[in-house]
Amino acid sequence: MSKDRIVLVTQNKHKLAEITSLFNEYKISFDTTDLEKLEIRSQNVKSIAIAAAKHAYETLQRPVVVDDTGFFVEALNNFPGSYAAYVLQTIDCAGILRLLEGEKNRNAKFVTAVAFCDHNHLEVFLGEMTGTVSQKPSGKGGFGYDPIFIPEGYSQTYAELSFSEKVRISHRTRAFRAFLEWKTHIPDNP
Amino acid sequence: MSKDRIVLVTQNKHKLAEITSLFNEYKISFDTTDLEKLEIRSQNVKSIAIAAAKHAYETLQRPVVVDDTGFFVEALNNFPGSYAAYVLQTIDCAGILRLLEGEKNRNAKFVTAVAFCDHNHLEVFLGEMTGTVSQKPSGKGGFGYDPIFIPEGYSQTYAELSFSEKVRISHRTRAFRAFLEWKTHIPDNP
Repeated sequence: MSKDRIVLVTQNKHKLAEITSLFNEYKISFDTTDLEKLEIRSQNVKSIAIAAAKHAYETLQRPVVVDDTGFFVEALNNFPGSYAAYVLQTIDCAGILRLLEGEKNRNAKFVTAVAFCDHNHLEVFLGEMTGTVSQKPSGKGGFGYDPIFIPEGYSQTYAELSFSEKVRISHRTRAFRAFLEWKTHIPDNP
Repeated sequence: MSKDRIVLVTQNKHKLAEITSLFNEYKISFDTTDLEKLEIRSQNVKSIAIAAAKHAYETLQRPVVVDDTGFFVEALNNFPGSYAAYVLQTIDCAGILRLLEGEKNRNAKFVTAVAFCDHNHLEVFLGEMTGTVSQKPSGKGGFGYDPIFIPEGYSQTYAELSFSEKVRISHRTRAFRAFLEWKTHIPDNP
């Protein structure tokens, strides 16, 4: 195991599955870690990812990648935003649907920030997907808010898409692809 | 202005009004500050208050008091918990009531942690008030979730009580009183 290999700081198996297929495509390998991602309190996923990447780099002294995703519902003043994970654990998708009962504006978006930190770099990459919140949960794929999110240009929820289709189009993919493109084109030893 | 006077780290005017009357009772004076309270992401108000007090002490180099309050609704898996302020800014009391529509279990509690930090001490004091979430908002007093919280043993919401009655019984008062009792009984120069 080389000390130059990237460490991906997440324990979420669904995320890992999505990300692994992308890294493979770019022929970039990575290790996982037991280190928990530092979570600062902020409404900005970019700041959260940057703080977590700095902390992981300082702790592990290896190149690290950390991502953070927010889910922003327009009619709810962008709730749950960067507290998406906590809200999922408590009131869940059912809570979001209940808060939107009778609401015509169902616009929502996912935003992922991917932060990379090593000895020479601290970079952050964003990926976004706009769409709408469905009337009821549908589909068994994906995780998190996937059963209630219909991406723009689609009539199905993220959870109804096939794994490969979701990975092809998702907010997370967009952010990781931006990172992987950048990583592929920087010199190894700047 | 003495460097030994306590600095209270809050910009919330409602809180300040409640706390000032308590400090007066104990003949302990304090200064305010523009310093923003550090907010770590945690579901534990005690940890949040301690981290904020340490940070404020390190920044100001004066004795500091910081409080943090969570609002825990039993039927919502303790949502909004320590994210009470963020949830108020987004879905507000109306969101909590909507999430509880048709729900029989309306148990809820407020928990305040007050942390004190100076050169010699790092102490934390807790105050709790159990009660229920009302069917609709009532009353014009107080702030935050006060219009929808009926403290145990009462038939009115916090917001329907007089200012002095709320200050007499509240979760915040219990935590600050614990602190003020302690502060009154420790030697000035240990």
